[in-house]
Amino acid sequence: MKPYLKEHAWSIIEEGFNKTNHEISESVFSIGNGHMGQRANFEETYSGSSLQGSYMAGVYYPDKTRVGWWKNGYPEYFAKVLNATNWIGLNIVINGEPLDLHTATVKNFKRELNMKEGYLYRTFIATLSNGNELKVEATRFVSFAMKEIGAIEYLITPLNFDGTAEISSYLDGDIINSDANYDEKFWTGITQTAEGNRAEVTVKTKKLDFVYTAMKETHVYLDSKAITPRSVNTREKYAEVVFDAPLKEGVTTAIYKYAANVTNRDHQTDALTTVATDRLNAAVALGFAELKDAQKQAWAKKWQDSDIVIEGDVSAQQGIRFNIFQMNQTYTGEDARLNIGPKGFTGEKYGGSTYWDTEAYCLPFYLATADQEIPRNLLVYRHNHLEKAKENAAKLGFTKGALYPMVTMNGEESHNEWEITFEEIHRNGAIAYAIYNYVNYTGDQAYIGERGIEVLVEIARFWEERVHFVPRKGVYMMHGVTGPNEYENNVNNNWYTNRIASWTLEYTLEALAHLKASDPDRYQTWINQLNLTTDETTKWKEIIEKIYYPTVEDLGVFEQADNFLDKEIMTVDQLDDKHLPLNQNWSWDRILRSCFIKQADVLQGMYFLNHKYDLATIKRNFDFYEPMTVHESSLSPCVHAILACQLGYKEKAYEMYLRTARLDLDNYNNDTEDGCHITSMAGTWMSVVEGFGGMKVIDNQLYLNPFIPGQWTSFSFKIVFRGARLMIRVTQDNVEVTNETNVDVTVNIHNEAYPLTANSTTSVAQ
Amino acid sequence: MKPYLKEHAWSIIEEGFNKTNHEISESVFSIGNGHMGQRANFEETYSGSSLQGSYMAGVYYPDKTRVGWWKNGYPEYFAKVLNATNWIGLNIVINGEPLDLHTATVKNFKRELNMKEGYLYRTFIATLSNGNELKVEATRFVSFAMKEIGAIEYLITPLNFDGTAEISSYLDGDIINSDANYDEKFWTGITQTAEGNRAEVTVKTKKLDFVYTAMKETHVYLDSKAITPRSVNTREKYAEVVFDAPLKEGVTTAIYKYAANVTNRDHQTDALTTVATDRLNAAVALGFAELKDAQKQAWAKKWQDSDIVIEGDVSAQQGIRFNIFQMNQTYTGEDARLNIGPKGFTGEKYGGSTYWDTEAYCLPFYLATADQEIPRNLLVYRHNHLEKAKENAAKLGFTKGALYPMVTMNGEESHNEWEITFEEIHRNGAIAYAIYNYVNYTGDQAYIGERGIEVLVEIARFWEERVHFVPRKGVYMMHGVTGPNEYENNVNNNWYTNRIASWTLEYTLEALAHLKASDPDRYQTWINQLNLTTDETTKWKEIIEKIYYPTVEDLGVFEQADNFLDKEIMTVDQLDDKHLPLNQNWSWDRILRSCFIKQADVLQGMYFLNHKYDLATIKRNFDFYEPMTVHESSLSPCVHAILACQLGYKEKAYEMYLRTARLDLDNYNNDTEDGCHITSMAGTWMSVVEGFGGMKVIDNQLYLNPFIPGQWTSFSFKIVFRGARLMIRVTQDNVEVTNETNVDVTVNIHNEAYPLTANSTTSVAQ
Repeated sequence: MKPYLKEHAWSIIEEGFNKTNHEISESVFSIGNGHMGQRANFEETYSGSSLQGSYMAGVYYPDKTRVGWWKNGYPEYFAKVLNATNWIGLNIVINGEPLDLHTATVKNFKRELNMKEGYLYRTFIATLSNGNELKVEATRFVSFAMKEIGAIEYLITPLNFDGTAEISSYLDGDIINSDANYDEKFWTGITQTAEGNRAEVTVKTKKLDFVYTAMKETHVYLDSKAITPRSVNTREKYAEVVFDAPLKEGVTTAIYKYAANVTNRDHQTDALTTVATDRLNAAVALGFAELKDAQKQAWAKKWQDSDIVIEGDVSAQQGIRFNIFQMNQTYTGEDARLNIGPKGFTGEKYGGSTYWDTEAYCLPFYLATADQEIPRNLLVYRHNHLEKAKENAAKLGFTKGALYPMVTMNGEESHNEWEITFEEIHRNGAIAYAIYNYVNYTGDQAYIGERGIEVLVEIARFWEERVHFVPRKGVYMMHGVTGPNEYENNVNNNWYTNRIASWTLEYTLEALAHLKASDPDRYQTWINQLNLTTDETTKWKEIIEKIYYPTVEDLGVFEQADNFLDKEIMTVDQLDDKHLPLNQNWSWDRILRSCFIKQADVLQGMYFLNHKYDLATIKRNFDFYEPMTVHESSLSPCVHAILACQLGYKEKAYEMYLRTARLDLDNYNNDTEDGCHITSMAGTWMSVVEGFGGMKVIDNQLYLNPFIPGQWTSFSFKIVFRGARLMIRVTQDNVEVTNETNVDVTVNIHNEAYPLTANSTTSVAQ
Repeated sequence: MKPYLKEHAWSIIEEGFNKTNHEISESVFSIGNGHMGQRANFEETYSGSSLQGSYMAGVYYPDKTRVGWWKNGYPEYFAKVLNATNWIGLNIVINGEPLDLHTATVKNFKRELNMKEGYLYRTFIATLSNGNELKVEATRFVSFAMKEIGAIEYLITPLNFDGTAEISSYLDGDIINSDANYDEKFWTGITQTAEGNRAEVTVKTKKLDFVYTAMKETHVYLDSKAITPRSVNTREKYAEVVFDAPLKEGVTTAIYKYAANVTNRDHQTDALTTVATDRLNAAVALGFAELKDAQKQAWAKKWQDSDIVIEGDVSAQQGIRFNIFQMNQTYTGEDARLNIGPKGFTGEKYGGSTYWDTEAYCLPFYLATADQEIPRNLLVYRHNHLEKAKENAAKLGFTKGALYPMVTMNGEESHNEWEITFEEIHRNGAIAYAIYNYVNYTGDQAYIGERGIEVLVEIARFWEERVHFVPRKGVYMMHGVTGPNEYENNVNNNWYTNRIASWTLEYTLEALAHLKASDPDRYQTWINQLNLTTDETTKWKEIIEKIYYPTVEDLGVFEQADNFLDKEIMTVDQLDDKHLPLNQNWSWDRILRSCFIKQADVLQGMYFLNHKYDLATIKRNFDFYEPMTVHESSLSPCVHAILACQLGYKEKAYEMYLRTARLDLDNYNNDTEDGCHITSMAGTWMSVVEGFGGMKVIDNQLYLNPFIPGQWTSFSFKIVFRGARLMIRVTQDNVEVTNETNVDVTVNIHNEAYPLTANSTTSVAQ
């Protein structure tokens, strides 16, 4: 498929209507505000192919598991993001002829996602089969200022006729998930009412009793004159207000639709109608223009903290801003019950909201661009799920410890592939690592004593029981795991998993020691509460000492897993192109027994524990593994880009950066119609800031080792560090760091320390 | 569950009606004749829990695959045994009250599977809620003399009333498979007719166009007086003839139902009605008594060739006869398009008809007890599927060779678990081994030149490409396989798989050499047709020489797979009972990384290639692996029983024998309601003949090394060897071999040769 979006620094723009791209655009142009989100479906009826998608954060459904062959330990349910009531719908009939872009003749079509101000705009001229030609301009957003409010402005201008538009402004709660396992509908109707300009639909999930009330008010104006509704109608899960709007050639008929979307996640169930009424009253009182202005201001603040500017490459500029925009739309960090779904609010595939992606790839973005509470809430989320993770470990036969799920909504495991669900347990390490990462970046050591230590100890206990001692060899081993490289399954002694397990034990012991020294009372309280014994900590030390790391001595590299070097070793460039991507061309067994790597595995460890390995070791491993890596996970290239930057492999770094920078904008994997790859967007941000920017925090010190790809004039990024907001601008000649705040800070640029006083700029030659 | 069946040497008997056992009995009391089969459902309506099951051999349906997560290479369809038109149904209403054992009061209930004569008999006295008490006796069989005919005698005797029975004798083709993936019905109706005493229902599968015509004729007599039908009715897929039969206290009303069951597998589609009419005419002309007598004679011949007599243990006697009975009911070997399904005609679970069970466990039974053409047809079946097996290999990315499917009906793969479908490739070795086994037993070396060599070469080619050379170690390895022990998945260098692969290459080279020497023309024709090059055969020799066999040098045992000895090594007796069976108590990952073995793996190799290993090696491996084996496959104990006999481990041998001898009769695995474990029944036969009997054929010589369990007075078995039928009787003191035929033969008893002339008996001290 050819890229069809226009390059622009601040907007995503589609010009001309091509039906085959419509579902891709529905994903790309999605809007969200952390509380809810909406695919870029048309407001008016569209009879062509479309995935109608409206999502309320944290509202999910446990769909009955579907498998070919059941394995003991599988969860019975798969928690799915719920597609919910369509609140944007406008059914428009012009002089008896429905407005439908699938059947009309369309010209001057333009769709624009304005990322700077946070709204979706669309315009077109349609000629209906009755010859009526009209221009439409539609603008909509979900509000950051009023999280439960969505607003639409829909302008119709007849170009060659007078007449009447029958406008039905509706709410439709009779929605089915595209990925329902058994084609079941997950919602039951509770109430539907319509009166005057207002309508309400309240629906409830068939399980778990989520209740969602959508209430909307619609106003229609001709030449500033309000039109009174003709009628209201309801049926189960559906309510509409119908207008007969007069149309006059050359004069604009304006429709304003405000919708309040409230759920019993946030409010008492019996108060939902009252709350929705309050919210809607407030929104209507403000009006569309003021709401839109507030949206612009909210986004200005987001961009102030998180923007990346790339000069000399509009395509790269657009790509990185799109990624930052989507990250900010998906997760705002105010609600510790929420997390970052793989598709955000742009689609419903894969279900679940939380993968290890959050800890491994998304956390750094929020650490560096948002207030400390926001990444902290990602940690609190896992702490809140600790009991479920302990239950999960018990279910799999462990006598203690916690195993966090591979995919989850509420802490319970949702996934069901044995080689992943039961074996891709390195996720537990990433959750421990996130605590380290957070404390290391923010300096908020107190979190350990507040919550972190409990998670660390339970994960450490899991690792303790998951390894086994091999008397014949005098070492601890870990069998039957799947590492980050999912193109090997059920291997023994995956180096990365052994390493992150052992590291967890090390860090837990360090954290305990630090807590004991800094807050002996709290330490003792935890020891008692966790019933932590010296037998356990002694065992951890023994495991740290005796854990087995597969190593290829003669090559000086770590071995990805036992017997990896017995494979037929080849590099990707020895493969004929017809084989790529492997996941579309090779049978699964062939992929598994090949040496080809889906995503960073040993190198993921080199990235996480970068400070533990010297450059020569990193280089040997990179040189060995990268050429075998096919990067068929969108999470792979960023790690390679960062390490390539560190090793001075400039071209490789830029190549890796490009692989995900515009993944969805260019529909690189031919699957953007299902939704955008939200978590990999954070990886692209990492490539720029930690890769090209060389940003690192070691021992409470900020380091920058930037380099700039030759293709760019300059790039600059914002980070928040210990209360200071810094703008780092890198040109081919200079690194310029501006402290935009009143807090003094020291920055190490190319390993030299520069004190940076409040509101000052330092410039260093590249 | 408690065993509830009576012990009897020749019959399976259930006394008293217990609804909770009904579905188990429906499986156990099933009847079949190789062409078709029928679960032991009641003829009259039963409103309780029941799996109605009627199966026509070779009639299957490609049900759309259902998986949780798709893997490249999975087949789109799973070929399922089709549950088909119910031809036994009699709906009986006594004075307005339906006869239904679920609601009636039942006494004197008895169900008997008469194995000696091959019929199912049932009797009971039922009291209906209207107080009417009646005695019923029902007898039915599917005929061996007329394969397409089923016949029922159903006798009703009123005990305390006169009145009328409304008897609907029906055919019902509106059947659904209990295991349909998407609750779809697989049959469409074609025609249904009813006239006079006859009715016909013709149905067609929604895919593949199998057409099945069931035609039946019903006669009802009171005191030898024929009753004329009252009416006939049809609706889609259904036809009935209804009688109003007068009932007289103490007088028997007799119903005879004859059904012809013909399909377009055997006849032209447009001739089905004609053929069914002919068959039915012939059956009706013979009448029930004569048909039943012919059945008795057919079974007498079966028992003459294949009976095993155990004296001093009725339970064991019943168990082994049940197994032999079921083997003979399931497969008669006249039709090379058929094979041996895991449930035979006793249920529809698992679909498919052919697993490696056929070659590994069933073939020896037919080799030793049936005419040579019958086991030969099992080989021809695979030869006929060779093109599909080549397609299967190509689909998985191989440039040549054949990979036979894990589960199949028509040669196409039906299974979809990547670790089995793609990796449990040792099945290919068993298919090669079956050729060796057949030629070795029968001496029919000509089969190699006729068909066998083609299969051997294509399998050898597969192995050639499936191994890879490891330059660092100078060996060939095979990665990513699942061995016979399915409690390890995706391992490297499974010893058994490497060994059977290498053995295939050895045997293929031997077979080629033999063919070249014995029939140079035919040899050259095959070389040309197969385009076999010396490059290939040279490569095979190199692989034989350099293939890697994992070995534990210090213990003197083969290692089941790479890293097996790195596991936590334990024996089953160290496990608390609460953990067993593992497959019900442990999560799948825990099973996989444990050392516990589901079924013989290294020892399967010691069994197949017994002549290649000395007793000390077999003993070391048995002593090492057997204690770790949980035998959670019903195919496991037989191999251990046979090796235990060879090693003189008498108690272990008997223990292993007992584990499957009455598997279904005692519902040992709590799953007999789904159907009987047909293929493991052949394993029990092997335990007796090859284990206790110590029967082996080496270099065209028959060897017997019998020992008798202390619990038995004697056991005797029949085998057919090179045209002679032998009866071997083993007592605590003697081995007595009787040659029942006119062919001279030599038998080696305890490794001493005894010439056995026609119709003579030799007795040797034990």
